[in-house]
Amino acid sequence: MDIKQFEIEQLKNLCADIRSKIIEVVSHNGGHLSSNMGAVELIVAMHYVFDAKKDPFIFDVSHQSYAHKLLTDRWDRFDTLRKVDGISGYTKPSESPYDYFVAGHSSTSISLAVGAAKAIALKNEKERIPIALIGDGAISAGMVYEALNELGDRKYPVVIVLNDNEMSISKPIGAISKYLSQAMAGQFYQKFKSRVEKVLDFLPEPATYMAKRFEEGFKLITPGMLFEELGLEYIGPIDGHNLSAIISTLKTAKKLKKPVIVHAQTIKGKGYVKAEGQFEKWHGVAPFDIESGEPILTKTLNKSATVLFSEALLELAKEKEDVVGATAAMPSGTGMDKLIREFPDRFWDVAIAEQHAVTSMCAMAKEGFKPFIAIYSTFLQRAYDQIIHDACLMNLNVAFAIDRAGIVGEDGETHQGVFDISYLNVIPNITIFAPRDDIGIKYAVEFAYNHKGVCAFRYPRGNFTACEEVKSKPFLLGQGEILHKGKSDIAFIGYGNGVGKACECAKLLDKDITIVDLRFIKPLDSKLLKNIAATCKRWYVFSDSAKRGGAGEILLGFLSEQKIDDVILESFEYEDIFIPHGSISDIEEKLNISTNKIVEKIIKVKS
Amino acid sequence: MDIKQFEIEQLKNLCADIRSKIIEVVSHNGGHLSSNMGAVELIVAMHYVFDAKKDPFIFDVSHQSYAHKLLTDRWDRFDTLRKVDGISGYTKPSESPYDYFVAGHSSTSISLAVGAAKAIALKNEKERIPIALIGDGAISAGMVYEALNELGDRKYPVVIVLNDNEMSISKPIGAISKYLSQAMAGQFYQKFKSRVEKVLDFLPEPATYMAKRFEEGFKLITPGMLFEELGLEYIGPIDGHNLSAIISTLKTAKKLKKPVIVHAQTIKGKGYVKAEGQFEKWHGVAPFDIESGEPILTKTLNKSATVLFSEALLELAKEKEDVVGATAAMPSGTGMDKLIREFPDRFWDVAIAEQHAVTSMCAMAKEGFKPFIAIYSTFLQRAYDQIIHDACLMNLNVAFAIDRAGIVGEDGETHQGVFDISYLNVIPNITIFAPRDDIGIKYAVEFAYNHKGVCAFRYPRGNFTACEEVKSKPFLLGQGEILHKGKSDIAFIGYGNGVGKACECAKLLDKDITIVDLRFIKPLDSKLLKNIAATCKRWYVFSDSAKRGGAGEILLGFLSEQKIDDVILESFEYEDIFIPHGSISDIEEKLNISTNKIVEKIIKVKS
Repeated sequence: MDIKQFEIEQLKNLCADIRSKIIEVVSHNGGHLSSNMGAVELIVAMHYVFDAKKDPFIFDVSHQSYAHKLLTDRWDRFDTLRKVDGISGYTKPSESPYDYFVAGHSSTSISLAVGAAKAIALKNEKERIPIALIGDGAISAGMVYEALNELGDRKYPVVIVLNDNEMSISKPIGAISKYLSQAMAGQFYQKFKSRVEKVLDFLPEPATYMAKRFEEGFKLITPGMLFEELGLEYIGPIDGHNLSAIISTLKTAKKLKKPVIVHAQTIKGKGYVKAEGQFEKWHGVAPFDIESGEPILTKTLNKSATVLFSEALLELAKEKEDVVGATAAMPSGTGMDKLIREFPDRFWDVAIAEQHAVTSMCAMAKEGFKPFIAIYSTFLQRAYDQIIHDACLMNLNVAFAIDRAGIVGEDGETHQGVFDISYLNVIPNITIFAPRDDIGIKYAVEFAYNHKGVCAFRYPRGNFTACEEVKSKPFLLGQGEILHKGKSDIAFIGYGNGVGKACECAKLLDKDITIVDLRFIKPLDSKLLKNIAATCKRWYVFSDSAKRGGAGEILLGFLSEQKIDDVILESFEYEDIFIPHGSISDIEEKLNISTNKIVEKIIKVKS
Repeated sequence: MDIKQFEIEQLKNLCADIRSKIIEVVSHNGGHLSSNMGAVELIVAMHYVFDAKKDPFIFDVSHQSYAHKLLTDRWDRFDTLRKVDGISGYTKPSESPYDYFVAGHSSTSISLAVGAAKAIALKNEKERIPIALIGDGAISAGMVYEALNELGDRKYPVVIVLNDNEMSISKPIGAISKYLSQAMAGQFYQKFKSRVEKVLDFLPEPATYMAKRFEEGFKLITPGMLFEELGLEYIGPIDGHNLSAIISTLKTAKKLKKPVIVHAQTIKGKGYVKAEGQFEKWHGVAPFDIESGEPILTKTLNKSATVLFSEALLELAKEKEDVVGATAAMPSGTGMDKLIREFPDRFWDVAIAEQHAVTSMCAMAKEGFKPFIAIYSTFLQRAYDQIIHDACLMNLNVAFAIDRAGIVGEDGETHQGVFDISYLNVIPNITIFAPRDDIGIKYAVEFAYNHKGVCAFRYPRGNFTACEEVKSKPFLLGQGEILHKGKSDIAFIGYGNGVGKACECAKLLDKDITIVDLRFIKPLDSKLLKNIAATCKRWYVFSDSAKRGGAGEILLGFLSEQKIDDVILESFEYEDIFIPHGSISDIEEKLNISTNKIVEKIIKVKS
């Protein structure tokens, strides 16, 4: 769509059309609603002033990039949003040449812009300029500051649009956020600026040097001082829904050929009354009825693992005063919101700051508290060094509650929680375990509380694949559980949510199969496994994790160390690819690891 | 040592004694010289004003903590510094109750202080206050900003001593550093502050509101504005070698019961003329002659792997214009200094900012360049999510040159480079390989340049354990190499620097052992390994990496997948512990993986 020739009224109509399309598709498919509704004018203006064919368009997190997708050849396919083989909910270069970079994790955009700017400078492609769109929530992460530190020093031409809806996913946290919220007040003072400058005449010793320092002093009257001190130009705040204002500002910013922050204020959910001004609720949504705003439930869901975790931790926190905890900007996503509300002095949202979340909680452990750090598997990757260097090396009593483990569904490849077993298992001093069912979550929280040392337990997005026959019991360090002792030589060895899958598969086979729940992947239950190995010579491993370094390879290491050489092992963990988006069942089908496909494979081996 | 009753002259003498002790021991044992010499007065003053028995003393990186160690019961044992079972070069709680926390990686201190402050508030231990000592180099990392963001908002009482020697390890980089360097100018303006305030009377509309904004404006005249905008009190700059000034400032800071930054300016190397004002050279040193300042060489070293890498990359960069690269504040440590000097538009030191280093280089790859990111194995942990999310998911042409892989020696547990194989192997789209000898480094750089996709290669600190018989050849994707085809059923399978160890061990055994260099751990050389498995049924694995998820387990995964069930495998990789400090040979002896110990083990199996 070439919108560069459009009149302003046409652009406004286009924005309305984009909003309708977003509401229509998201109400059917689910997705990010409020961030996309809020960013429509900003994105249309970006396309009007810049050229996505040549200028790197960099969307931070890229959950707000729907308008960009609609403007770049994906209008007709947009109804496949988040469906298997359909349009991704995030930017994805393999989907469109207009998508410059993958993003799904926050706060990478300014680093990307710096890298692109360096490349552009080297290639001497002066007509190109990177433009990044970043939300006020994303600028709390350290990466942003690392990038600004270099950008402000080297002064590459980069335009950064700061989309400030004072909301991020949840209520924003921290000094930066407070700082930004003074922005509107700032506008007021700007009007006085010219009058104030006259004061310079009254200064004692009005040397040039002094005057220059004072000029800098006046910047304080604008809200951009923080950025200006970091060496960036600042323009704003502007109304992020006023197309003419955005367009003229972006044109100015583009001409400066310097790093510029354009501070735009927007209303999240703009254009869909039920979502406007709402915090976390309308951030990521399931399919809903446009009229009423109510979710369309396809089936009655049991309480999710997240809710069960939240309830268990709340109960524990009421009883035990040493329980504390943190989330990194995912209060409702992790269920920590309830705890923060109930115990604001013991549970914290530390903003998008996974590194700080982990290390600050480590100090609390050192002081005798028991911190629970609730975090998605995929985001825990961002605190890897802190887990090693600050938690495990210190051997502290810290518990990691790893939410969204396994395939997460529609969010896709950036969000899959499949690496955690592998990257945690190599760290000394950590205990790694997993519940398999609803009641197991409660026992996991209890065990974690009592455990001395670092521990981590994982649970899936939504509900466990139930293994209804045998409800789990409290955890005992390093003890697995035999759910069923069969007469055949086959053992299904499950871990976490994989146990339910093992049970499902066993039911469809006519052999009497032994079913084991490992419960602990570190340390393993050596005694139990040796017993199983004595009678079962074919082990099938079930775990919703990457195969490399996963449950299966950990068991192979065990068998090798124990010099058990007569057991054949096959793992149904994930192959070595980035797993795409789509419903969990569609994706498992696609990867040939649905229950039926697994059963087929096992039958083939048997024949 | 109770120094609280000391007169100022006694404290000065104490500082002199500490400096002598540091020079004496470091000249014998090697260690961090200039940072420790520069921080003596700051640390003595910290102990004078605060109480390390109760106040959390938090040393960022803690390479500057020697004076603290000398003041807290370790004077007599200090000559064992960095020796096996001796005093660690970093703070270590297991060594002394006065060491609050482990540190070896930069920029964790403010997060720790925030966590400690939260705990202190909860416990209502109002007399305790966390004090952190952090260098100007360390504040470039994102973690610091994440922590300041929370601290400035919640306003916990914390004293942060910013030890500003404008030097960090190498010349400091970035906007923050420039900002700090204005500090001395700031001092000049402070004197004018009171006179300037009178100007307020001349203001138009001198409303209270307006006046308040102006008061904020005046802060600009101090260099602390950046911190003040983040919600912290700022005092400084002060002379970090003037004991009286530091003591009175710390007393003030302590009383404020707020987050305070004390900005102290120091001279790195202060008190040892040869080191004063020198950049990287005197940061970490080998044993040296105090009189001449010249290093005492115990043996003639060949060029280190780092130097060979640097030379190979420089040669490549001269030939190929698309070669670019980055280091995160380790220019000479990684050998990137030569490249930055020669090609300042293509190679960058981005400051202590591993996340930004990786992601910004990914954008350069997207733009068609070939970035080499040279980084220590242990520090690469800090960019784990960026490797996954920005490099591998995008499948970009980025090369990671992983220096200091394996046991690094005297720096000890915080710096061991033993996890990289395990945490990288689980990531899709990455190619992982390693040279085994000097010429191999050159081939590794060549291969990495030509490889399409993400690749990572590792090499040790110092020199390779040589395998002199067979010099390595150029790398071919996924191809291993048989160094010797033996007649026995034993195969020694080496990877990287482990190949040399395998050769050493083979020489001491009287069997005719097959020796294989894997070269690639991902992808493995399936054909070669199947061939070996056909004749050799006992595999011993040599690699300087953690056993969990390491070379041995990767091979077990391969054997399992190939359904090869008649091969017994034993790996001599590192057991699941944090490996302590000491010379590499002492540590290998201690861990029972010295050449002799390994040979003994193999002989035992044979008998």
